[in-house]
Amino acid sequence: MTSVNAAVETSTTLEQALQALEHLMFQAVDSQVTVLRDASRHILEAGGKRIRPRMLILSYLACGGTQIESVLPIAAAVELVHTASVVHDDINDHGVVRRGRPSINARWGRTFALLTGDFLFTKVYELMAPHKDLNVVLAEATVALVEGETLQAAAVKENTLSRQVYYDIIARKTAALFKSAAQMGALLAGAAAEQVEAMGQYGFNIGLSFQIVDDILDLVGDEAKLGKTAGIDLGQGKGFAAAYASAGGAVALAEAAPAKNPMDIFKQKLMEGDTLQTAREQAQQLMWLATSSLDVLHPSDAREELREMARLVVERDF
Amino acid sequence: MTSVNAAVETSTTLEQALQALEHLMFQAVDSQVTVLRDASRHILEAGGKRIRPRMLILSYLACGGTQIESVLPIAAAVELVHTASVVHDDINDHGVVRRGRPSINARWGRTFALLTGDFLFTKVYELMAPHKDLNVVLAEATVALVEGETLQAAAVKENTLSRQVYYDIIARKTAALFKSAAQMGALLAGAAAEQVEAMGQYGFNIGLSFQIVDDILDLVGDEAKLGKTAGIDLGQGKGFAAAYASAGGAVALAEAAPAKNPMDIFKQKLMEGDTLQTAREQAQQLMWLATSSLDVLHPSDAREELREMARLVVERDF
Repeated sequence: MTSVNAAVETSTTLEQALQALEHLMFQAVDSQVTVLRDASRHILEAGGKRIRPRMLILSYLACGGTQIESVLPIAAAVELVHTASVVHDDINDHGVVRRGRPSINARWGRTFALLTGDFLFTKVYELMAPHKDLNVVLAEATVALVEGETLQAAAVKENTLSRQVYYDIIARKTAALFKSAAQMGALLAGAAAEQVEAMGQYGFNIGLSFQIVDDILDLVGDEAKLGKTAGIDLGQGKGFAAAYASAGGAVALAEAAPAKNPMDIFKQKLMEGDTLQTAREQAQQLMWLATSSLDVLHPSDAREELREMARLVVERDF
Repeated sequence: MTSVNAAVETSTTLEQALQALEHLMFQAVDSQVTVLRDASRHILEAGGKRIRPRMLILSYLACGGTQIESVLPIAAAVELVHTASVVHDDINDHGVVRRGRPSINARWGRTFALLTGDFLFTKVYELMAPHKDLNVVLAEATVALVEGETLQAAAVKENTLSRQVYYDIIARKTAALFKSAAQMGALLAGAAAEQVEAMGQYGFNIGLSFQIVDDILDLVGDEAKLGKTAGIDLGQGKGFAAAYASAGGAVALAEAAPAKNPMDIFKQKLMEGDTLQTAREQAQQLMWLATSSLDVLHPSDAREELREMARLVVERDF
């Protein structure tokens, strides 16, 4: 009975914290420069899964932290790093729909989208300014994210994609930020080095798994559920194809280049073979690896929620 | 005799420090992602006046600091904020020449230029991560810089430029970073609050003066000396014109809009009236205001170099 109540209590508190997080992010992006404020609010209002701040908070609780409010600025900063990268991504990929709304570049144009992304990055810097040690962790993840995006663009351009390169890319552009979120949660709770390390592994592997599932959904997902233009990210699609396609898939990759809509050829070829199945199994395996890292933590409701989060990352359809 | 020697010594040490600064910035932008490293080096190698780090170091020395090496990472971060903003500016303004070289967007394309700018911003964050209190100062200046750029783009688009708006723009996009450089130099030297405040005023007014002179040079300067495409920044030119043009100039602004090359009309009209003279006098006045802030400092060679720097900011032709 107690355990059920405790679970309910943690869960309520988490949802309350996530509400407060929204408020905090809105406050953080306030500006006298109305277009920056409006464009930032536009993308924040559209929602998003908030999986990174959720992971940070759960990691904090699972490592024994009790003052959820104290970690919210850090959780907000992590989500804003992701948001900034999404805004700049949409410029580079010419994405016109994001989270079910017009992208910032579609609505305000490229110049303001570029500046809004810069604004969000600098707001992260400002939010984090008072947090010396954590800054080292988040700054490193932010650099990795930009490096990962660049590696992807370069590999597509130079046609050097392979499974190895795909992993290099997603480790940087996605898993590094998940890792930092989980680690910072543990650090904020004052966890022992072993736990911080374990949470870092959890976050990193969930991040890889999350991105693989994202790439699968980008190929086969329902655009309405995804809330973004599916299949537009040719770089991502090519990376994914290079990583998972069988020989037939590799041929499709080469053939696809001169075609009018290479993504359609990709999709068809990929869905013919066992590519998607292989990728799904890989995502599943990484998820198991992630959850096994949680064994060093004391049992708690938050730890169970981290397990559940891992399961949802793999099983989601949006 | 002693004072002359001391001056020579300070000056040598400053130049050595600026050499070490170059090395440090190169180290900071190293990356396994070669395009980020190469593009960052490309813009750093092209030089630039390094006026912001120079100001930070001189402010540090003038406030009694003696360990120049210790302030170099902060000086590097300030210059990298400026460099990042220049890289993104060239995307938005379609600038093809910067510091006498092809701009990053001209050479590597827009996607990599956007990512290189992001990379430089995140490297600032990483460089500054261990410096808690200073981060609050630099983060605020970095946010202001992005806000100033945005304000300019918005005012041009909405045609709301005026002298007041021009000052709002240049206060944020240029003076805020100069102010932070001078203030951080003082803070690093452990200066009293009064001195930190005075150095902030010095930096802020030099920043305004610097930008006004920059805008004059953009209109009438020698492209070879400037090392960048002159007169391309219509937003800047329009802001400047709105701030300083007499009635005739204001008409020119309205007339210019539908013309093929509005900048040529601007230039001609602006050079006919007393606009440039008014702007030069304003820059001069701000420079005097800046140097008067230095009176609260103890006399030193570094203080004299700060005065000299102020003079050069106004009298330069590049």
